[in-house]
Amino acid sequence: MQSQDKETMIHLESDYNNGAHEAVLRHLMETNSEPSQSYGDDAFSEHARMLIRGACHTHNAQIWFLAGGTQTNATIIDCLLQPYEGVLCADTAHINVHESGAVEFTGHKVIALPSHEGKLDVADVKAWLKAYYADDTAEHMVRPGMVYITFPTELGTLYTKVELEELRDTCKQYDLLLYVDGARLAYGLAASKDVTLPLLAQMADVFYIGGTKCGALCGEAVVFPRGDAPAHMLSRIKQHGALLAKSRVVGVQFEALFTTYGTEPLYMEIGRNAVALAMRLRRIFVEKKGYRPYIDSPTNQQFYVIPNEDLECLRQSIGFEVWCPVDEHHTACRFVTSWATTEKDLDEILKD
Amino acid sequence: MQSQDKETMIHLESDYNNGAHEAVLRHLMETNSEPSQSYGDDAFSEHARMLIRGACHTHNAQIWFLAGGTQTNATIIDCLLQPYEGVLCADTAHINVHESGAVEFTGHKVIALPSHEGKLDVADVKAWLKAYYADDTAEHMVRPGMVYITFPTELGTLYTKVELEELRDTCKQYDLLLYVDGARLAYGLAASKDVTLPLLAQMADVFYIGGTKCGALCGEAVVFPRGDAPAHMLSRIKQHGALLAKSRVVGVQFEALFTTYGTEPLYMEIGRNAVALAMRLRRIFVEKKGYRPYIDSPTNQQFYVIPNEDLECLRQSIGFEVWCPVDEHHTACRFVTSWATTEKDLDEILKD
Amino acid sequence: MQSQDKETMIHLESDYNNGAHEAVLRHLMETNSEPSQSYGDDAFSEHARMLIRGACHTHNAQIWFLAGGTQTNATIIDCLLQPYEGVLCADTAHINVHESGAVEFTGHKVIALPSHEGKLDVADVKAWLKAYYADDTAEHMVRPGMVYITFPTELGTLYTKVELEELRDTCKQYDLLLYVDGARLAYGLAASKDVTLPLLAQMADVFYIGGTKCGALCGEAVVFPRGDAPAHMLSRIKQHGALLAKSRVVGVQFEALFTTYGTEPLYMEIGRNAVALAMRLRRIFVEKKGYRPYIDSPTNQQFYVIPNEDLECLRQSIGFEVWCPVDEHHTACRFVTSWATTEKDLDEILKD
Amino acid sequence: MQSQDKETMIHLESDYNNGAHEAVLRHLMETNSEPSQSYGDDAFSEHARMLIRGACHTHNAQIWFLAGGTQTNATIIDCLLQPYEGVLCADTAHINVHESGAVEFTGHKVIALPSHEGKLDVADVKAWLKAYYADDTAEHMVRPGMVYITFPTELGTLYTKVELEELRDTCKQYDLLLYVDGARLAYGLAASKDVTLPLLAQMADVFYIGGTKCGALCGEAVVFPRGDAPAHMLSRIKQHGALLAKSRVVGVQFEALFTTYGTEPLYMEIGRNAVALAMRLRRIFVEKKGYRPYIDSPTNQQFYVIPNEDLECLRQSIGFEVWCPVDEHHTACRFVTSWATTEKDLDEILKD
Repeated sequence: MQSQDKETMIHLESDYNNGAHEAVLRHLMETNSEPSQSYGDDAFSEHARMLIRGACHTHNAQIWFLAGGTQTNATIIDCLLQPYEGVLCADTAHINVHESGAVEFTGHKVIALPSHEGKLDVADVKAWLKAYYADDTAEHMVRPGMVYITFPTELGTLYTKVELEELRDTCKQYDLLLYVDGARLAYGLAASKDVTLPLLAQMADVFYIGGTKCGALCGEAVVFPRGDAPAHMLSRIKQHGALLAKSRVVGVQFEALFTTYGTEPLYMEIGRNAVALAMRLRRIFVEKKGYRPYIDSPTNQQFYVIPNEDLECLRQSIGFEVWCPVDEHHTACRFVTSWATTEKDLDEILKD
Repeated sequence: MQSQDKETMIHLESDYNNGAHEAVLRHLMETNSEPSQSYGDDAFSEHARMLIRGACHTHNAQIWFLAGGTQTNATIIDCLLQPYEGVLCADTAHINVHESGAVEFTGHKVIALPSHEGKLDVADVKAWLKAYYADDTAEHMVRPGMVYITFPTELGTLYTKVELEELRDTCKQYDLLLYVDGARLAYGLAASKDVTLPLLAQMADVFYIGGTKCGALCGEAVVFPRGDAPAHMLSRIKQHGALLAKSRVVGVQFEALFTTYGTEPLYMEIGRNAVALAMRLRRIFVEKKGYRPYIDSPTNQQFYVIPNEDLECLRQSIGFEVWCPVDEHHTACRFVTSWATTEKDLDEILKD
Repeated sequence: MQSQDKETMIHLESDYNNGAHEAVLRHLMETNSEPSQSYGDDAFSEHARMLIRGACHTHNAQIWFLAGGTQTNATIIDCLLQPYEGVLCADTAHINVHESGAVEFTGHKVIALPSHEGKLDVADVKAWLKAYYADDTAEHMVRPGMVYITFPTELGTLYTKVELEELRDTCKQYDLLLYVDGARLAYGLAASKDVTLPLLAQMADVFYIGGTKCGALCGEAVVFPRGDAPAHMLSRIKQHGALLAKSRVVGVQFEALFTTYGTEPLYMEIGRNAVALAMRLRRIFVEKKGYRPYIDSPTNQQFYVIPNEDLECLRQSIGFEVWCPVDEHHTACRFVTSWATTEKDLDEILKD
Repeated sequence: MQSQDKETMIHLESDYNNGAHEAVLRHLMETNSEPSQSYGDDAFSEHARMLIRGACHTHNAQIWFLAGGTQTNATIIDCLLQPYEGVLCADTAHINVHESGAVEFTGHKVIALPSHEGKLDVADVKAWLKAYYADDTAEHMVRPGMVYITFPTELGTLYTKVELEELRDTCKQYDLLLYVDGARLAYGLAASKDVTLPLLAQMADVFYIGGTKCGALCGEAVVFPRGDAPAHMLSRIKQHGALLAKSRVVGVQFEALFTTYGTEPLYMEIGRNAVALAMRLRRIFVEKKGYRPYIDSPTNQQFYVIPNEDLECLRQSIGFEVWCPVDEHHTACRFVTSWATTEKDLDEILKD
């Protein structure tokens, strides 16, 4: 038995505490006995690539399936940077905080700039680059090779189309790559007013479409929209321990995630549902409970300032994560919806 | 559509070209909606650990679940060696040949000794170590820190109990760790006359129980039988990009693999069935077809010397791997059984 | 011919733009034809170690001679940290800015805290450590393993005895190592009111005595005052490419630097002379020329706010380094004295 | 005092157990008080580069000065290989045996082929490359990126012009770089019948001219004869801890080594003298003492099979290195001449 939760416990701790979306699991079942090739050459992965290319409007995109997020970041950043280059990011970026130094482990400096509610400000990036290139001692410093952003960010916030364009233009001007970590991309796309998958594919030099947190058992899809991945990627991915022998495992899941069951690919539907529930949760928390948002997040990660005296009571019925203390009497807490969250869950919260 | 195979095509290319054993998949289904913790703290993984400890007769074993074999080898070898140490292995060892240099990528020399049908000879190991410690310049050379063996080997062969004891004694004498790569452990245990899981747990300082090639979708279980894993393994595994957020994915599968459905854990049953089929295949090939074994393998990887004029015909009905040329007229080929192979498959081969 | 400088040009660009102190060079001459062992086993190095142990009042110190500063930092930090650990330092620290990412290249994160005129504030260190250990997700973050400071700092400033004690106590409390980069140690010791070589040896777990910038042709002496260097340091130093075959080259020079020619070891005399000249330069600049110190440095690196209209004229007679703009009309510039600077040089400046 | 040697002790243990050739030391003296730039920009290094370009007949060669041999090998190999590439060499190669795994430490596999008296056989290289490129699983193996040879080899032997041409042609055919480790290059050039510095510059993509073992205190000159070093070499060298701040130290020494004092550059004279003495030593050992050469070395490293009963007596008057046992009654020993060896030394040996 997994837990002693009372029956009505609602789980909003994270978007990776359930298994997989049922359509994903069903597809694993129905393809299970079909034999396939391995190491990325299986027909499932190939079909998933075709579907993703379609969704991205990039006919010659190269796509690699890896198992998890930190692995993907460390592998891709290391493969794309020259050994003497570093990566610029917000100081709240996952690679700077919560990956146990996996990027530095591959030899590269993570160059952290101030975070603005999780986002990197293009002005900060420009100022840093200008100072770097004006410095007589630049050759003794780590050379910038890439800008890393998350979409949505670790705080649930989103870059606008204009902000992405400015980052891309700055990257081009200074000959940097723009890499977008889309661990929660489904939720970001669902919530954004102007960023779509095809737009992202235009902006980024490389990005990944997160599976683990968006309905898959495991797996992330790395997309090189212009088909310009470095040579020998298979060797390099394997060298990083990131090549799955039974590659179909991720391929089949992305086949399911990018299949259109109703009017849109499942991946989009998963994002849309979770964001709709997050917005309903927001109304409940703000309008009914009077909680103030800690950060104005339009995506599936919601942060509220909870009076400390409410914490214990809330914990009886909802699983959530304490984020940080706000003041003596209040605590910021994170509530995360996902494909596994239901209207019924929110009904329960409303009732309490 | 996955393939243009004719209906009767028998797939013996590898043990990772199907999905998962149906009991594994079923268990993924039935646990799917139960919420869980993450990063290895989920109750499924904890239960799987308990089952594995039981099967190994090691009550304080520490167990970590990783996603794939090369990842596991690179992570474990790097975590257990001092930075200035190397790993001894047979020159045919997977880490020396087929992991794209993943071990060297973490900074360690792979020190290859002659392979004897895939096996390391303890006499070679002793001679090497004796020479190393007798050398005045030893401090300028890579210090040996570990012996790596595979069970079964890349050529399907097996160490006997006595051979394992000799390797363990040599390792103890020279203060080396003994690490056993069990990518295909189920098949090795099923075929061995005297090596059991509890014995392996006594011989090895660390070993892994392969899931990917033995019935799981993905996943390997690293076992420290004496509970003496290095400090901060979670950080180190994450630093290597090998920590799954949704750790239940592998935990649930190993829960299924080490559950006793009939009279033995599924893992053992999978091994036993595949080896029985491999032995039947051997009889068919040797007795009916007159093919000579290329290597005398008692496990699920079978190697035969096939007359070149038979190759095309065989390929019509069987998928297999060309291993290497033997002489002008013969080719060594590999045929691999697995949990997915059936008696019916072999009936077909017999018929042909 | 090296330069087109007019005869009276005074060189204050750095403390490494001349050869070696004449006593150092003379000792290289007089020992040149004596044969010796190699790789650190030569009698010159052994004698230099004995002299350094005496100067540090540490009878069992272990001492290694390396060729240069960045090499020493990268090698020592990598050898002393566990692979999953990072190093805390001021954001102006040499390892964070001017070593081309050499520390990250060995796999470790450099964790930068705010610089206070080049110094790390113990309160910042404590606050960071407290937050780290209070964080539920600490195992997903880079573990702190060391505090790195420079003495004197990159801005010429000095830690007091009390500040060193507080840093050491904090390190002990949190089980971190304290490493002191003494690239310009001679000048720091000469200028400090209360920090001596024996005190430094008590405070630091490991430190290096800089040779390159303090009168040697090349070479740095790494001191483990308590004789507790990690095992197999020779192998590790060689693995980092930092072991000199002809180790006597550095050994002979440190023999000279720690020989007492007058009333104190040459190393101390070099520091004292350069600091006295720096103080005289300060009086000239502040009292005669009316320049304001940019930073209040008591050591051989002096920083002044120079009116832009004076820059060109100054450049005619003095070599110095532009540090950074201060405002529209002023620029901070660095002037560095060394063993090679003379009273006559300063007479010239005074005259101008 | 350095040693308890009796006055007549002759030191033939190695070519790095004295200081520097007197002309090198003298040049350090006479340039000592001239101020200079740093980090490779000093006029001494620039002049040394000009002299080396002249000696190599390569007008656009790029030249970098590093401190020692292992450092040079690890830095250059790592900078020139892609991260997923390995380096082919003889199994006796210095990088494979005596560099404490410094190459693997930078992430690259050292792929050892059989040694033929220290030399790599082009037929072995071709066979290995042919097999690699014929292998279906090549992408799972370490890709070959470079051939590393030593000239002279660790056993004192030399490649002929024809052998170098064949290696170069094979490298070109398979798109590999040819790197020549010239730690003892002076002695190789002096002994070779047909290999000159200009020829070497035509054959190799990159090579280094050893200083430490050929008359300098320290330092090696890395030459890219076609001026095609990778971008940002200064950053990369610094990242490897191999950039000297006071770069003049090596620059001045190579200025001396490549200055023509008599009829040839000092470097050539040093090599010629040491080889002439080695040949005289050979005549003494073979003709007078009846010792058999262990290896037929034409360079300054001489290897002889010494009857065990002679060892103790020889040790009274000559310092040498025991190489390996030959049979029960004989031991192979190494005797090394250098710039510091004199005719008088050999007279003594002859007398004994």
